[in-house]
Amino acid sequence: MSSLILYTPSGVLAQAQPLKRAAKRLAALGFEVSLDEAALARHQRFAGDDETRLAALHRVAEAAPSVALATRGGYGLTRLLDRIDWPLLARSVERGTRWVGLSDVTALQLGLLAHTRQTSWAGPIACDDFGRADSDGGVDEITRDCFLEAMDGSLEAIGFRTEAGLDGVEARGTLWGGNLTVLCSLLGTPHFPKVKGGILFLEDVNEHPYRVERMLLQLWQAGVLDAQKAVLLGSFSGWKKSPLDRGYSMKACVEALRERVAVPVLTGLPFGHVPTKVCLPVGAKAEMMVEGRDVIVAWGHVGHGHDHHDHHDHHHPHGHDHDHDHHGHDH
Amino acid sequence: MSSLILYTPSGVLAQAQPLKRAAKRLAALGFEVSLDEAALARHQRFAGDDETRLAALHRVAEAAPSVALATRGGYGLTRLLDRIDWPLLARSVERGTRWVGLSDVTALQLGLLAHTRQTSWAGPIACDDFGRADSDGGVDEITRDCFLEAMDGSLEAIGFRTEAGLDGVEARGTLWGGNLTVLCSLLGTPHFPKVKGGILFLEDVNEHPYRVERMLLQLWQAGVLDAQKAVLLGSFSGWKKSPLDRGYSMKACVEALRERVAVPVLTGLPFGHVPTKVCLPVGAKAEMMVEGRDVIVAWGHVGHGHDHHDHHDHHHPHGHDHDHDHHGHDH
Repeated sequence: MSSLILYTPSGVLAQAQPLKRAAKRLAALGFEVSLDEAALARHQRFAGDDETRLAALHRVAEAAPSVALATRGGYGLTRLLDRIDWPLLARSVERGTRWVGLSDVTALQLGLLAHTRQTSWAGPIACDDFGRADSDGGVDEITRDCFLEAMDGSLEAIGFRTEAGLDGVEARGTLWGGNLTVLCSLLGTPHFPKVKGGILFLEDVNEHPYRVERMLLQLWQAGVLDAQKAVLLGSFSGWKKSPLDRGYSMKACVEALRERVAVPVLTGLPFGHVPTKVCLPVGAKAEMMVEGRDVIVAWGHVGHGHDHHDHHDHHHPHGHDHDHDHHGHDH
Repeated sequence: MSSLILYTPSGVLAQAQPLKRAAKRLAALGFEVSLDEAALARHQRFAGDDETRLAALHRVAEAAPSVALATRGGYGLTRLLDRIDWPLLARSVERGTRWVGLSDVTALQLGLLAHTRQTSWAGPIACDDFGRADSDGGVDEITRDCFLEAMDGSLEAIGFRTEAGLDGVEARGTLWGGNLTVLCSLLGTPHFPKVKGGILFLEDVNEHPYRVERMLLQLWQAGVLDAQKAVLLGSFSGWKKSPLDRGYSMKACVEALRERVAVPVLTGLPFGHVPTKVCLPVGAKAEMMVEGRDVIVAWGHVGHGHDHHDHHDHHHPHGHDHDHDHHGHDH
């Protein structure tokens, strides 16, 4: 049975109920779930003071469960980055721990990659994805299935539908990324991974497109974007239009980016602060292929000399259009 | 008579009225005011497309007025940084032009410093500071007087009141800074000035303290803060409390910063998105002294071998407390 520890590295949990619900559901999915002793700690807006959260991180790493799943994001990991025992975290990965999360957890994942080159998993967050009340939609099936396969090691690829005009695009390199704001907040620091020739994925929430554009232009001006093979844009949700926009939108932001960036920019990755999200191995060697509007991102046999086109256990995108950008998978 | 050109490098002007009011008032203050031909241009959320705004910047630089005053901030200069003719702007400064503004204009000012080491002025913005309707408070007298003295060259220092406990702090170095978000958005790019041993001033608007803290920690982790002699914090206004804060505030943010940063961090600088703001020469050699709670930042004779303690023409801070952090000047 896979062991799974729920811990809280960043923001305080306002309520215990979503966490209890998540623990129960994850147990029902077959995990041996335990709760870190500080998961419900409180200090200002943080889940305990810096010492408490740092100790929790190290405690989880020592325990080296199959899965280390953050209960929520928020803000707080930046405060800890300079004091994290990276070799200890790396050893937990070598012992089999999959560190999973998104949003503020991006800081942990990119720090781990920068300091140790170890892989972690961009994916669900316990309270939001497994703790959502049934009356609010409950657990998203694709998110759940993708998570289960990623955690048992069988997930080797994900697929999604992008816009037209990118047929034939291919890229091979290190898959990395996460939350755009958090990733940008590491730029210029020792915690920013120096990835060349990678496949960079990005998402954000509550950030107006002009702010998203400002961050993307910073990454471009810093030489990060053109050093990649491709950029995958996930969901940019939760922002509010302004009367000053006058037609400016995420579409205009992506256009401004494409005018400048030398590498392909693909939209539609089902990842971000939305119910339906895939799991992606941050730091793994991966390959991306576009056929028509179907994109496959595969990491299963990349670099092992197999003909990976034929025997991936991956999620196929739907064969028909949706009203929105996020596409699910056939099962 | 000093010539003054009003131009719009970033966001679109929603209304012409504040600009007209600003032009009229600046004329009444003795400036020969002209309006750049694209000051009211519109393209999406920008004051004209990138070509239009870039041409406006270069047109102002060619004209080399005594004062080049931005009509407003917003977002847009980041898009232009890679294409600005920096030597052309530097020549305008050599011919006597003072480039003035704040907020998004920080990108222009820091780019100018990074590429040419020329000085510009962090200070008012036309529509907000000179275009405000009388019913909304009209023109702030301190802002106006400080601007007039900075523009005629007589301003050699500013003073303000900081908190207790910093008596005796002194620093000498390049004065630089501006809007924290915009400054951070240049980090890692060729447009970020490499200032060692400087006096860094920062302000922001509509950014929650946890976001301010994240940016400050980034600057610290990137080695920028500890490379300075002092950090001056201006106004951080317009943010909204969250139920998750649980006592976390700007005070907690400053405390977290001081726990880490090796150099003095002073609060109370009257600069930011507030009516009362001083003018500060970005890129000038300056000296800072604290006596009791009174801070003086002087640039008049620094580096010229004078005994600058005795004969500054500077603004004295008030000798009594206010209810808020921003302090004015005796006249």
